[in-house]
Amino acid sequence: MTASWPKSLDTLFGACTTFAKYVSEATDGKFQIQTFAAGEIIPGLQVLDAVQNGTIEMGHTALYYFFGKDPTWALFCATPFGLNTRQQNAWFYAGDGQKLIDDFGAKFNSKCILMGNTGAQMGGWFNKEIKEPADFRGLKMRISGWAGKTLTKLGLVPQQLAGGDIYPALEKGTIDAAEWVGPYDDEKLGFYKVTKYYYYPGWWEGGTTNHLLINLTKFNELPKSYQAIVLAAAGLANIEETARYDALNPGALKRLVAAGTQLRPFSQAVMEACLKASNELNAETSAVNADFKKVWDNMVAFRNDEYLWWQVAEYSYDSFMIRSRTRG
Amino acid sequence: MTASWPKSLDTLFGACTTFAKYVSEATDGKFQIQTFAAGEIIPGLQVLDAVQNGTIEMGHTALYYFFGKDPTWALFCATPFGLNTRQQNAWFYAGDGQKLIDDFGAKFNSKCILMGNTGAQMGGWFNKEIKEPADFRGLKMRISGWAGKTLTKLGLVPQQLAGGDIYPALEKGTIDAAEWVGPYDDEKLGFYKVTKYYYYPGWWEGGTTNHLLINLTKFNELPKSYQAIVLAAAGLANIEETARYDALNPGALKRLVAAGTQLRPFSQAVMEACLKASNELNAETSAVNADFKKVWDNMVAFRNDEYLWWQVAEYSYDSFMIRSRTRG
Repeated sequence: MTASWPKSLDTLFGACTTFAKYVSEATDGKFQIQTFAAGEIIPGLQVLDAVQNGTIEMGHTALYYFFGKDPTWALFCATPFGLNTRQQNAWFYAGDGQKLIDDFGAKFNSKCILMGNTGAQMGGWFNKEIKEPADFRGLKMRISGWAGKTLTKLGLVPQQLAGGDIYPALEKGTIDAAEWVGPYDDEKLGFYKVTKYYYYPGWWEGGTTNHLLINLTKFNELPKSYQAIVLAAAGLANIEETARYDALNPGALKRLVAAGTQLRPFSQAVMEACLKASNELNAETSAVNADFKKVWDNMVAFRNDEYLWWQVAEYSYDSFMIRSRTRG
Repeated sequence: MTASWPKSLDTLFGACTTFAKYVSEATDGKFQIQTFAAGEIIPGLQVLDAVQNGTIEMGHTALYYFFGKDPTWALFCATPFGLNTRQQNAWFYAGDGQKLIDDFGAKFNSKCILMGNTGAQMGGWFNKEIKEPADFRGLKMRISGWAGKTLTKLGLVPQQLAGGDIYPALEKGTIDAAEWVGPYDDEKLGFYKVTKYYYYPGWWEGGTTNHLLINLTKFNELPKSYQAIVLAAAGLANIEETARYDALNPGALKRLVAAGTQLRPFSQAVMEACLKASNELNAETSAVNADFKKVWDNMVAFRNDEYLWWQVAEYSYDSFMIRSRTRG
């Protein structure tokens, strides 16, 4: 299994480790999966090619990296103003998400299984304040997937770099801004040493899903018992990755702020402009890409119902808890 | 495996079905788990006794049912103003939760493994409006676990009934009010036919966790490979139960409102009075129960850090999405 991340990111790579461990234990060591970091044998952004071609049997990645092959990939991972983490899981495990990705993934000879979710991400690191939509203009920013394409509508110049390549680019000034995930990973990657403003929320990654990719021919050749073990172990690795992020982010956030990082919310004007750009891009893409339209329409209908319910119990509970905490 | 729920509640009982299916498939049918609804062989509220005594090997339940044996049980399941769903998973998978429940559960000869979470629940069904804290006084309410004890401070008379026994009690007037889970389950149980007001949020169940209970002696006797399969399958069943609730609740909420159910938020005054009662009860209990104090203190420290971070990316993302949806 090759990953799109370095081993130092023990949240993302941890999903690979957990998965391989349970598969091995469940089979008394008969089914061994060797895990490789980005670049060890396959570059971080070439996981899909390698799995599709059978160069390697499995990969762990964020499918929006492959929006250049087809933007439909981004919808299964994270897309601007898409589903939050639990909604993403609900869409895959109990909605139409898995069926849609099974159909689409088969065109790339890939079986795609949920294996990790980062939670809502941060909006990234900037050397200047982003007060209005025009402040994105001309910025060279490392930003993943469909979000980069969306922000070109506001004049941003997106760069897609694997995790391990971002800090050097930021330090050398090859890029002006960068987003990765959230406090815990971003602290590890060291962005706070070379940039000052840390924005939220990452409106393009409300609940970024990682997938286990398996060469479909190889997956179909597995014994049924091994297929069941793969699915169950991936399920555990999925929920555990989110748990690790949720447990590790608060401490990292405190350390970053103590080290001088300035937290900034994107203004309402910025959020509205981005939503408008996103809606335009998705409409344009839906007009020319039937797969994209099918998946996006399904996801939007699901999302709108989800948030109808979300605001009742879940959001009002969190609201009270957040207000109570800040009052001590 | 015996459950605390009827089979008709396919969300909760569905976790048992998923778990047994994956364990069977992963072992080529060699490890078969037969699932029983509440009352088929063990009453719904006697799962812990039955597992502890070895009457049955496994159970699926909500541990707060057993607060009468020790209120520490409630903390592992759902407790007023406790953790939300993802935070609960984070505490168990990546914080101290699993270690704490392993130590505590051993006193009851039980291995406890996460297997389902309902999400934030609703505050229940009432025949009259609850406008101020005094409106709880004298109400006979079916309410689970530690929440019932908390509300006795406000004069409520709590009743603990298994899911299948609530509707008849409500219909006969043996109880005045009842809470179960949320729209999907509550619609199935028919409460909307005999009560009018449906309150939110369920401040006593921010993320109610279900557990797979296994007789500890039996668990330790399992081959290591079967233990790994049990843990992985329970992990998948855990995330899938939440996914099912999240996918099914929106439609049920719409149908309930269309059928005349009146949604009502608990007022700030009610929430504050309940928080005060909860803090008092937890302080009193901590003073006399060392296990409770140890677990509660650990959870509160975790919770406060979690919500510090939650309000940044996650909550601000959801806030924007909810506001955007209501504006169309």
